[in-house]
Amino acid sequence: MADLSEQNQRHLLLLSSSKAGDSDYLVHSKFWLKSHFSQSKTIVFIPYAGVLTSYAEYTEKVQRALADMGMHIRGIESYANPREAISQADGVLVGGGNTFVLLNTLYQYGVLDPLRKRILGGMPYAGWSAGANLAGLTIRTTNDMPIIEPPSFTALGVVPFQINPHYLDAHPPGFHGETRAQRLTEFMRVNPHTTTIALREGTGLKVEGNAMRLLGAADAVAFLDGKQHPLSAGSVVSQFL
Amino acid sequence: MADLSEQNQRHLLLLSSSKAGDSDYLVHSKFWLKSHFSQSKTIVFIPYAGVLTSYAEYTEKVQRALADMGMHIRGIESYANPREAISQADGVLVGGGNTFVLLNTLYQYGVLDPLRKRILGGMPYAGWSAGANLAGLTIRTTNDMPIIEPPSFTALGVVPFQINPHYLDAHPPGFHGETRAQRLTEFMRVNPHTTTIALREGTGLKVEGNAMRLLGAADAVAFLDGKQHPLSAGSVVSQFL
Repeated sequence: MADLSEQNQRHLLLLSSSKAGDSDYLVHSKFWLKSHFSQSKTIVFIPYAGVLTSYAEYTEKVQRALADMGMHIRGIESYANPREAISQADGVLVGGGNTFVLLNTLYQYGVLDPLRKRILGGMPYAGWSAGANLAGLTIRTTNDMPIIEPPSFTALGVVPFQINPHYLDAHPPGFHGETRAQRLTEFMRVNPHTTTIALREGTGLKVEGNAMRLLGAADAVAFLDGKQHPLSAGSVVSQFL
Repeated sequence: MADLSEQNQRHLLLLSSSKAGDSDYLVHSKFWLKSHFSQSKTIVFIPYAGVLTSYAEYTEKVQRALADMGMHIRGIESYANPREAISQADGVLVGGGNTFVLLNTLYQYGVLDPLRKRILGGMPYAGWSAGANLAGLTIRTTNDMPIIEPPSFTALGVVPFQINPHYLDAHPPGFHGETRAQRLTEFMRVNPHTTTIALREGTGLKVEGNAMRLLGAADAVAFLDGKQHPLSAGSVVSQFL
């Protein structure tokens, strides 16, 4: 981890999902995003988690969803190279999709370390789903299928915990796979000293330096020390930083 | 991959799950297991996929479930060391749990290669869920959370395809994660030349040398060439070997 003075400059918005309930794409979070990036002239969007659409299509979808917000969003694929995009960005936004593909692509292009440095230097970062996972220590609490093998599970680590997006209690009837809580309990057994914050759809974490708050109308769950700890909707949860 | 003469000796029983519908533990598959291991004096059980129970507890649970079948099942944890167990086994049975933990432990103990050699040499192998996944080329189509980082995703590779256990079409209402079919379609996009066979709960694949049949009352789905191909319940599916 970077030293404390660097972490004091973090500006992170880590969203569970691109949708909440029956809402349209990014609707529940567009004002959060607007305010998060209020000082960012150009926001670079990273569509690498998308598998079935092209990068340009994914970027356009996000630009369209946020068109009425007056934000300047530019896809990383439109730059001469990804490293240049990261160095020029005034903010970075990372979309959901497959977390393994996202992380693998960032390693492939050699931009994971430069991105981490920019974030710790104060550049605002936001992401949803895979893009939220990426901010954590590793991707070991993703819900995604490991369809590609990245060089490492180590992620940005700009927060000192794991994130589990799309958290839910429901389970298809008659199905014998594990519930999400069981999976995260297994994670705790194998990794007893690592905290996971599980975020329900429509919620997120807002990190400003060493302060952190839970956004959205639902509660969250912290998995640590072998137990589940409920976190109230909207509460300050800086103790996990 | 090993050469064809070696593969001719495979005896594999690859089960989607330990339960089918509302049945008790291993009930739907106990006669399949009995017949599969009819020539095996001592069957070594590998409980490494279990996370929340001890190896001894997991082995006892399986021994109890199969107690009326007259099979001699011995847990790998009861041997002086795991390599000795693999070399002495007349058959190997691998239980479900977390596929990443299973594969990581097999690498840790250095028994993945010895186990592959025994299987290709004709020793009967059976597994369910994570234990079925393990027989495939890699664990890239597991449904499990990657709670630990194995040295590699490469698995036994005693069949030339991927397995997706616990396959289902259902999806919790209002949830915005991917369906299983979407995940496997993404796998195909990233890995266009690799076949995945998706097995519904209560079904399995029986491999005898270069012949393969689908067991159980439900159909299966093969994901290849960007499409889904239905496989009829009980049909011969040797074309995937």
